[in-house]
Amino acid sequence: MTKELEKKTEKKNNKKPKQKRNYYGYRRKQNKKTAKETVPFRIIPLGGLKEIGKNCTILECNDEMLIIDCGFCFPDDEMFGIDVVIPDFAFLRENADKLKGLIVTHGHEDHIGGIPYLLKEFNIPIYASPLTLGLIGNKFEEHGLTAETHFIEAGNKFSVAGFDIEAIQINHSIADAMAFSIKCAGGHIVHTGDFKIDYYPLDGKVIDLNRFSQLGTEGVDLLISDSTNVLREGYTPSEQVVKDSVHRIFESTDKRIIVATFASNVHRIKCIMDASIAHGRRIAVSGRSMENVVQLAKDLGYLKSIPDSAFVDIKSIANIPDSMLTILTTGSQGEPMSALTRMATDQHRAVKLKKGDVVVFSSSPIPGNEKTVTNVVNKLYEKEVNVVLSDMMDVHVSGHACKEELRLLHTLVRPKFFMPAHGEYRHLIEHAELAKSLGMHKKNVFIMGNGDSLLINGNKAEMTKEYTSGDDIMVDGYGVGDIGSVVLKDRKQLSEAGLIIIAVAIDQATGALVAEPELTTRGFIYVKENMDLIEEATAVVYNTIGGWLEKGSKDYAALRQTLRDDMRKYIYKRTKRSPVILPTILRV
Amino acid sequence: MTKELEKKTEKKNNKKPKQKRNYYGYRRKQNKKTAKETVPFRIIPLGGLKEIGKNCTILECNDEMLIIDCGFCFPDDEMFGIDVVIPDFAFLRENADKLKGLIVTHGHEDHIGGIPYLLKEFNIPIYASPLTLGLIGNKFEEHGLTAETHFIEAGNKFSVAGFDIEAIQINHSIADAMAFSIKCAGGHIVHTGDFKIDYYPLDGKVIDLNRFSQLGTEGVDLLISDSTNVLREGYTPSEQVVKDSVHRIFESTDKRIIVATFASNVHRIKCIMDASIAHGRRIAVSGRSMENVVQLAKDLGYLKSIPDSAFVDIKSIANIPDSMLTILTTGSQGEPMSALTRMATDQHRAVKLKKGDVVVFSSSPIPGNEKTVTNVVNKLYEKEVNVVLSDMMDVHVSGHACKEELRLLHTLVRPKFFMPAHGEYRHLIEHAELAKSLGMHKKNVFIMGNGDSLLINGNKAEMTKEYTSGDDIMVDGYGVGDIGSVVLKDRKQLSEAGLIIIAVAIDQATGALVAEPELTTRGFIYVKENMDLIEEATAVVYNTIGGWLEKGSKDYAALRQTLRDDMRKYIYKRTKRSPVILPTILRV
Repeated sequence: MTKELEKKTEKKNNKKPKQKRNYYGYRRKQNKKTAKETVPFRIIPLGGLKEIGKNCTILECNDEMLIIDCGFCFPDDEMFGIDVVIPDFAFLRENADKLKGLIVTHGHEDHIGGIPYLLKEFNIPIYASPLTLGLIGNKFEEHGLTAETHFIEAGNKFSVAGFDIEAIQINHSIADAMAFSIKCAGGHIVHTGDFKIDYYPLDGKVIDLNRFSQLGTEGVDLLISDSTNVLREGYTPSEQVVKDSVHRIFESTDKRIIVATFASNVHRIKCIMDASIAHGRRIAVSGRSMENVVQLAKDLGYLKSIPDSAFVDIKSIANIPDSMLTILTTGSQGEPMSALTRMATDQHRAVKLKKGDVVVFSSSPIPGNEKTVTNVVNKLYEKEVNVVLSDMMDVHVSGHACKEELRLLHTLVRPKFFMPAHGEYRHLIEHAELAKSLGMHKKNVFIMGNGDSLLINGNKAEMTKEYTSGDDIMVDGYGVGDIGSVVLKDRKQLSEAGLIIIAVAIDQATGALVAEPELTTRGFIYVKENMDLIEEATAVVYNTIGGWLEKGSKDYAALRQTLRDDMRKYIYKRTKRSPVILPTILRV
Repeated sequence: MTKELEKKTEKKNNKKPKQKRNYYGYRRKQNKKTAKETVPFRIIPLGGLKEIGKNCTILECNDEMLIIDCGFCFPDDEMFGIDVVIPDFAFLRENADKLKGLIVTHGHEDHIGGIPYLLKEFNIPIYASPLTLGLIGNKFEEHGLTAETHFIEAGNKFSVAGFDIEAIQINHSIADAMAFSIKCAGGHIVHTGDFKIDYYPLDGKVIDLNRFSQLGTEGVDLLISDSTNVLREGYTPSEQVVKDSVHRIFESTDKRIIVATFASNVHRIKCIMDASIAHGRRIAVSGRSMENVVQLAKDLGYLKSIPDSAFVDIKSIANIPDSMLTILTTGSQGEPMSALTRMATDQHRAVKLKKGDVVVFSSSPIPGNEKTVTNVVNKLYEKEVNVVLSDMMDVHVSGHACKEELRLLHTLVRPKFFMPAHGEYRHLIEHAELAKSLGMHKKNVFIMGNGDSLLINGNKAEMTKEYTSGDDIMVDGYGVGDIGSVVLKDRKQLSEAGLIIIAVAIDQATGALVAEPELTTRGFIYVKENMDLIEEATAVVYNTIGGWLEKGSKDYAALRQTLRDDMRKYIYKRTKRSPVILPTILRV
């Protein structure tokens, strides 16, 4: 070897370790070639980022828009009286003529709950799996809606305007969940939906890892992926683990078994039904959503193996011996009106709990529900039933991929750009870190918020903050978006200390009182036990009006303000409380 | 061996395995001897059973009463506007002349928070450790109270009327915590307070297991014991584990370190201060309760080893390089007004968070606080600070004994009777099961509720359900107990949909309206954007009054009711909401 060659070799060898792993590098050349002809596309998430809930993502290319999922979330503690929260459709209104369709990954509320509100405004076709469409259909019935719908299944390829879409098998805690590969003139997007990797799913449909690998080889411009469990190391266990636990419970008791679980987890429900049949038990179903989903699952053929004779009406369970009965119920989150909570509080018409009953929570509390679940558990203990929780036994597994699974997916898909989705801020950050640890350059990873825009054009990607509204739209009764922060602030103040109404009738000519002032309170204190306070407060009103009269003022707005201020001062001094004070002046 | 002897031996051998383990049996003989001379004593818990919070237990013997602890708890979600919840003192009022004193196990709010309200009514001496008395003293200052107080320390023996009391060293998540052995004419009670077993406590004061053993040998009639962690197998780790983690964090970074922890955990706080000094950092303290406790701990000599020069005023931290600064702060539970939350939301005057800051939660969320903590964590992630939580690293350990520790304590104390305390229903049940598994007979274990009574007389014990009031007393401003379920229900309804006030002025003679009806709303909808609704609602009022006039009625109560009903129907039909409707009729 010549010195020179030696040097070169050395150089080469020295260089090698500096080369970063680059799992999408092979495609760089391709893109360079076509750089001049690229078409831009844009991603605008309207919900689901920096939060867990109301997932909704817009994909725009060549003046056509595709919507992926449209969920709702439940209000947070400060959103008094709000039923649900949906994404802001303002951006869609501005682009109504561009909307070509809605594709739905799966049937959980945070992916379909906003669809009725969406369809009320925009008449677009919906593409989803049979179970998902069934669950959407139940909502449409409630809202009196119809829509053009298309059944799709994992493996199907279909087009919506200029978007060529392929549904890909994944695993999740609901049947018929799927990921999407979407090809448009601008590029290729893979959206995982909510997923985990289950090598032993109960329906045998293992996530199509090979297809993800093939798509990765074809080239993926943007990966949008579930971040829910990114804080957890390792793997989410297979649903098989739950099946084993369920069977162990059924083997170990001859008492009644009551299982609370998520109604939409059809595979879990079938698993519990299978165990019941294997142990000679009949199945009663309680709770509206559980009844609806079981009916839907029957109609769609998910429960073909369960004969009708296995079921018993919840009203007829008195005739069934304990050892021959399973009750499937709603209420795994401790919801106050749910069937399980009603059982625990003796308000269920058909089910009276008794000592020895086995109550299984085949679930874990959704963050924020810990206390309500605990309350129900304590009530169950008071009834001397045996409570089985997921932290005692493997009666529940998550539906989302942990770190190791996410690493696998990233390694198969090898995207050019990555946008972590479906997570709170900390999840998005950790998912971005995970992608970087696998070799992605940080400038190709985009942590977005609702309403931000990601414009991708060939090898270039640019994020615009607050491109459109990513607001929470609150639904209260028939009202969508008519409750704002002022109303919520009022509700909060009312909730904390109630209110005092001061009603006075005043002679327009003289300004004098023409009737006794009326003081009314609500949510303040027991007035009957505090008559002295009301008398003193009434004296305050007379004083205020006296002072106003002396001034000879006719400024009723000023009188209203003074009535409020004087009363507020008196009440705070006397009670250290700040109720809402509402003066009403009738001019006679 | 004769046949007979053989038989006897056989009998003996056969018997042995049938003998149940009976760890208090040795004392049966003693008690038999003195059975005729026994004096009864009674335990009445007023708080802390079937709940975690407001611990308060009454011990009565020979017409004398001793109170052990008097805490408060925070209101649950349905207790709108309530500041804190304290035990019902009705029973104490009925027996005011019997009250001899209050002994306090330690200074946590659920053991001392109710004391100001107690002392406002009953002038009794308080016996507690220096730190506990210091924390109580801070409360008394706020409430403008004074009381006779007595310092006690672990190992001290003292008497309160006919009660001979010994304070016993235990370990807990606050300095100066103790258990009590209480001997009265009726018998011997051991009350563990809140405890865990720490063989390596930071202050070197290991739980006095030998004393528990000696007391057990002397004979204990009733054990009252902490049940908080009875659902957890094994042992709670030593505080030493936290110390190691804290040092690891300090070794690994040259950025600012901000530690949020419980202000009252003086040992933890000292540990963080020690680590700061060891790594050349100065210490700034933020948050009122943290400032108060640090001052108190300094005054009491707990921080002797920390020189004054180690501290820096929070307002002067701008001058300190990041690598030389530790900030100790409140807010480990995500409390909205706490110092850490203010830092996370850019509302803290002195501390602006910056990229790379290390924020340690040396705590775990108290059940119910999970979501508020998560919200703060997400805000911290947005600031690109490095967040360390107890589920990532051992920066927090519990202060309560797990199953294995409880087994040890039971085995040392060997009580005749057992009453699990300090726990929700499920904890009490599991603690009872644990005692039974160790050989206690189920009839000697008493699962009590607040207000129940346990009367012990020699070998007999009898529980009376609802012996007195075990109610929650709600404190709202200056009001103690003046808020009841009706007021709370009103607050809830107001919080959900707000209210509509209908004010009308009516001529007493004719019944005709003498002024325009006034409709006022709060927390309902944006009135300005819904003027048509208000116009229609006003028309409803005119209609209702028209109908009433036609009838020629003078029944104003009926008019009020009809105004309410008609408005409710209209509003529900139009908005699907149910605000509170408040008609006010002024008779001119």
